[in-house]
Formats: sequence, structure tokens, C-alpha cells
Amino acid sequence: MEKGLPKGYRASSAQAGFKAPNRYDLGLIVSERPAQVAALFTTNVFCAAPVQVCREVVRERGVARAVVANSGQANACTGEEGLANCRETRRLVAELAGIAPEEVLPLSTGVIGAQLRMDRWRAAMPELKANLGTRDAEGFTRAFMTTDAFPKYAVRDVTLSGGTVRLSGMAKGAGMICPNMATMLSVVLCDADVDGASWQAMFGRAVNATFNRVSVDGDTSTNDTVLGLANGASGVKAEGEDAAALETALTDILGQLAYMLVKDGEGATKVLHVRVEGAASDADAERIARTVGHSQLVKTAIYGKDANWGRIVAAVGRSGATVIRPEALVLTLCGIERFRNGQPVNDDAEDRLYELLQGNDVDIHIQMGVGQGAYTLLASDLSHDYVTLNSDYRS
Amino acid sequence: MEKGLPKGYRASSAQAGFKAPNRYDLGLIVSERPAQVAALFTTNVFCAAPVQVCREVVRERGVARAVVANSGQANACTGEEGLANCRETRRLVAELAGIAPEEVLPLSTGVIGAQLRMDRWRAAMPELKANLGTRDAEGFTRAFMTTDAFPKYAVRDVTLSGGTVRLSGMAKGAGMICPNMATMLSVVLCDADVDGASWQAMFGRAVNATFNRVSVDGDTSTNDTVLGLANGASGVKAEGEDAAALETALTDILGQLAYMLVKDGEGATKVLHVRVEGAASDADAERIARTVGHSQLVKTAIYGKDANWGRIVAAVGRSGATVIRPEALVLTLCGIERFRNGQPVNDDAEDRLYELLQGNDVDIHIQMGVGQGAYTLLASDLSHDYVTLNSDYRS
Repeated sequence: MEKGLPKGYRASSAQAGFKAPNRYDLGLIVSERPAQVAALFTTNVFCAAPVQVCREVVRERGVARAVVANSGQANACTGEEGLANCRETRRLVAELAGIAPEEVLPLSTGVIGAQLRMDRWRAAMPELKANLGTRDAEGFTRAFMTTDAFPKYAVRDVTLSGGTVRLSGMAKGAGMICPNMATMLSVVLCDADVDGASWQAMFGRAVNATFNRVSVDGDTSTNDTVLGLANGASGVKAEGEDAAALETALTDILGQLAYMLVKDGEGATKVLHVRVEGAASDADAERIARTVGHSQLVKTAIYGKDANWGRIVAAVGRSGATVIRPEALVLTLCGIERFRNGQPVNDDAEDRLYELLQGNDVDIHIQMGVGQGAYTLLASDLSHDYVTLNSDYRS
Repeated sequence: MEKGLPKGYRASSAQAGFKAPNRYDLGLIVSERPAQVAALFTTNVFCAAPVQVCREVVRERGVARAVVANSGQANACTGEEGLANCRETRRLVAELAGIAPEEVLPLSTGVIGAQLRMDRWRAAMPELKANLGTRDAEGFTRAFMTTDAFPKYAVRDVTLSGGTVRLSGMAKGAGMICPNMATMLSVVLCDADVDGASWQAMFGRAVNATFNRVSVDGDTSTNDTVLGLANGASGVKAEGEDAAALETALTDILGQLAYMLVKDGEGATKVLHVRVEGAASDADAERIARTVGHSQLVKTAIYGKDANWGRIVAAVGRSGATVIRPEALVLTLCGIERFRNGQPVNDDAEDRLYELLQGNDVDIHIQMGVGQGAYTLLASDLSHDYVTLNSDYRS
């Protein structure tokens, strides 16, 4: 699998020991020239210090030259001291990279409420500097993993009329994930020459079609950030049809990362593809998909390979969708119809469904039969391991 | 513990074998005279056949003389056949009790989507008739238990100016419980002489203050029903101040049952008391309390006796409440302040909190500091046993 970065970017990582020894927990990306920044952030009111600082960059500058990411400490709910620490980390990194502190975008993930261990930041700078240019997409990704079981990255080359550009997407996140704006930490690097407004617009659309449609546990983190950098180092312009081609590739990359996030949902054993069609509106379809995808009863049943379709129908019924006609709904589970005309069908398919539910991907197709609204949500199941991981997160 | 029924009611139960042998799964209550009926039903669009029939009784008659309840089969999502079966069960019970079918209120709970086993209903009628008058509140309750670990009932005598009346409350439910109108099956019997409108009004207020403020898993069943019968058999009128005294006792009874529902939430090891105060409005306070009480991350942390207050603050931040001022929020966990002025306090209290979290009841007090809105929700934690129970419900 291709792991390289686009032109004009160098990456590094270091073992700072924020949470545990002998673990890469600090990552850095430096662009040789200012990159256009596109970004989406958590909608959580209690946003972390690094989110506040990134927002400043987007609002006041629109360009940046570096991303620094740490795991182990979220720097959220840490007040003025947390904000001051965050600014100090930018200063340290800027000095190392020979750029201005205002050109650094900070990302943090980990336990909420603890102040950054600044002594360890300072001590890690020489290693971070020494390793600059030695890391690829996987190397950077590993530095901001937390409970992730595997590193999530995807690289794609796109041929435009003026030449080839590259997109390298990197993401982390396995818990506290809910489709609500940015849903975890992710950095997408690109070397296309694209103007800032176009980049931000296509990035927003791509995030909305991908990251905003996944759910692990319905919780929204204080730190969720998706950053997109385009530094133009390829010298290839992306305008008009080329911009459209770039957007298609970007959406594809983010879609791959989003799928990986659900697949690696904490304790997840399956990816539920909740596809709602025929709803009165897209908004209704979304409401239904989220209610089904967040239902603890649906998630545990699928985990148990139990085709308990009644729980799905019940979730539809409490979704709050504006139009629900029980007799119009058709529910198809893994390709087998189980509910139509207000009552069960194919009662003899239980054994076949049990076999189908052994698979990693579970298709839940809900045809509402009342309109044209549609929405698809990817959701994880709810397992014993989810409970184990989350009842023992900090020990 | 007092287990008796109010005057003028007889109860029965039988082993019909709807799901498993040698288990009481059919219960009956008969009132010697027509009783005023108060009722609240699920808001789920896919309401079960018995819910549809009970609604008819409330709408068209307002009085009834019997309640028949079965476990093992929900008779939900069963179409016209399910409705016809439900009416047939009323006919069978009416014949047994010597009353009219229209005087019978049906309740069903169990797996969604299967048709009632009418042969077993018919076969159970002689036993149900023979046992009439031999069961108390506990006996009836046991007949509609499903995954409940213990029978939930409470009896209280109330002294009014004209004499003493009795309230006997019975409830079942441990999963698919969400504070949204009636949240499980419950029957409250009363022998006071109270007019129908007053009874329905006080019942609605009492349910809203109790059952509507508990949550196990955020799911709302297709069958949720709370019935209140008042048959006047005590000859004691409940008007004016007496009605107020009766309402106080009724609210107390329902509050006890609601607490038992959360305590016996599927796999629950703890009852979370999520108390929100100082919100901009009661609606905001409710939104915050429900977001915290439904958060999988909060529920698993408390299960793990982990005072992970950051997850609580994060849940507040994504609740959608109209006014949230991070610097105004004060979070107190089990009596110990952990967040104030936008940052953690009492960092050295972790060990003490771990000890406090060994208890069965966990107090989460969220002072928003922006207004007068308040709301309290009782919620269960999320444990390994919850996942076990719900991934293996039907086997």
C-alpha cells in the first residue's frame, strides 16, 4: 500500500512519553511552503484548546505550514493554562521547523482534563527535529493513535490535465465518534495548486458525505478536527473539471478513512450499513438512519448475529421522522425481506440470516415508501469489548 | 412488604407456555365493578396490537373491568392478524370473568413480530379461571416479567378524610426503556372513588414526574403502556385536598416503581442520578440530563467506577442546549467538585471518588449557572451483562 506524502511535505514523530513509555505519541508535518487550509471542527461547546487555536488560524490566516499532533492528552477542559500550553507547543515546534508559531496547527487527543506535560514536550523536541523527513503517512498516523487497533491512512494519485497530484489522508479515532461535523482527528495533505475558497468548499462537501455519516457510539468529542492542507508543490493547478476530479478523489479518500473508523470502532466486530430510502425527506431519512445506527438494542443484536429485525422497526418508529406509514415500510436485512405490509415475512429465513450475520458488513435497508428522501449511515455494533475498553480507559 | 390488592380486585396467573415451560406468563386482574381508566402509551409509531386496543377503550369507554397481560410475545408488528388475535384474547378472558370483551384491557410483552400462540391461550383459560382471586400484587407482576431480575411492585394505604384507600402498583421492564411517555408495562390499581377526569389528570402528572424520567438504553418499546384503574370499591371519595393526597401517594408509588426499573435495568449495576440545575430552561436541563444519561461513554465509565468527569462535560457540550457557558458550569460527582471555571478542580480526589463509585447510587450534579431550569433523570450504567443479555435475547 502506498504510504508516501505529497510533494513538499516532511513528517516526523517522537516518543515523548505523554502516557506510556516506548510509544510514538508526538507527530509533526511541515510543508515547505504555506498551504491553503480547509478545516472542520467539533460542534461540542467544550472544545479543546487546540481546536480554539486552529479556529484562529482558519479565521485569521487561511494558510499554515505545519501540523503538530499528540496523543495521550486531549488538552480539553483545561482553561487558560491549557490555552497557554497549546501556544507554547506551537512556539517549540515553530523554532524546530524554522517557521512562525502562527503557521502551526495543533491537534491533541487523549484523556480530557489533564494539563499538557510541557517538560516532556520540551524534552522531545530534539528527537522530533532529528526525525523530520523520515516518516510517511503511516508513521505520522501512528503518532496520534489512541485506542485505534490499526493505523488509518489512504494515499491516492490523481491525474489532472496539468499533471499528477497526490492526496495523503491520515486519521485516528475509535471511540467518542458521532456523525456531527468533524468526528475525530484527521489530516489530509495535498500538493495540488488550488485556491483557498475552492479547497475549503470541496473539503466541506467531502467531509459531509463521509465523516459526517459514521457513528461508533453517538458521542462527540471535544477535540474533533479534520484538517486539509494544499500546498501547490506539484505545480499542477486544480481548476474547473480538474477541481471536480480532485474533489472526487478527496471524497474517496475520506470515505475510505471513514469506513476504517467504523471498522475499528472500539470493540466493533461489524460495520452496519444503515441505508434509508423512500423517506419523506433527506432529513427524515437521516433521523431514521441515526436512530437505528445509535440504538443499543440494534447494535447488540447485530453483535450477537441475531436478526432481531423488530428492534430495527421499533427504532424507526421512535425516530421522530415526520412521516412514517407502518404499512408502507419494507425492511430488508442482508438482502432478505423481513417486514412488509405491517407484518413479518420470510419467517423461515432465520437460519440463513444467522449465517449472513457472520460477515463483517451488515446491510440494513429500510425502504420507507413515502417519498424520495435518502441517507446512509455507517455504524459499528456494540460488543463486550466496547464495554471493557470504555470502563477501563484510563487505567 | 405489603402485597395486597385494593378492594374489589381479584388477580390470577397461569403457565401458558408462550416462551418456556413452567413459568407464569399470563396474568389477569378483574375488578368487581367498572373502574375509571387512566392510561399513557408508547409514542412509538409502530405500536403493538394491544396498545391499539387499549387506546380504543380509553377513547370510547373510559372505564374497564379487567387487565390481561402476557409475557413471551409482544404482538407488535403483527398486522391485521395480530389485531384479530388480540381481540380474541379479550373474548376468551371476558367469557372466563363473566364480563364484556370491551371491558378488557390487554397488555403484551416479549419478542416483536411473532403472532400470538392462540392454542396456548385457549388451553390456559381453565387454569387462569381456577386461580382467580389467589394472586396478590407480586403474583400478577411475576406473570408479565421478561428479563426482569426481580418483581417490581409497591403498595400503599392512604388515609383520606372519608377513610383509607389503597394503591397497588405493578411494573415490568428492564430493557427498551427510555423516558418517553409510558416506558414499560405497568398497572396501578386503586379503590378510591375518584372521577375519571381527575384520575386521568393526576395520573398523567405522576407519570411525567416519574416513569418519564428514567432511562436504561434510550430505546422506546412498541408496547409501553401504563394503566391506572380506580374502581371506587373502598367507598371513599377522593376530591379536593383528598385528591391531592391521593396524587402525592400515587406519585410516590410510581417513583418507587421507576427507581426499581432503572435499578433492574438490563445488566445494570448502578443507578445514575443525573441532576441538572441552573440551566436556561427546564427544556435545556432535560436535554442535558438525557444526553448525559444516554451517553455510552458516561455509562461505561461509571460501570467501571471510573470518575471520568471529562466524558460528562463533553456530553453536556454536545447536548444541543440553547445556552452553555463553559466557564459557568460546575460539575459535582458524588459530592466532590471536579470541574469549575472551565477547568478541573480537586485532581487529588480520584482515589476517594473510586471508593464512592463502589456504591449503587451515583450522584451526578451539573450546575449550569445560566438560569433556573432543572431536570433530574435516573439512568442505568452500561455493563458487560447488558451486552450479553441483548446479544442473546432470543436464544
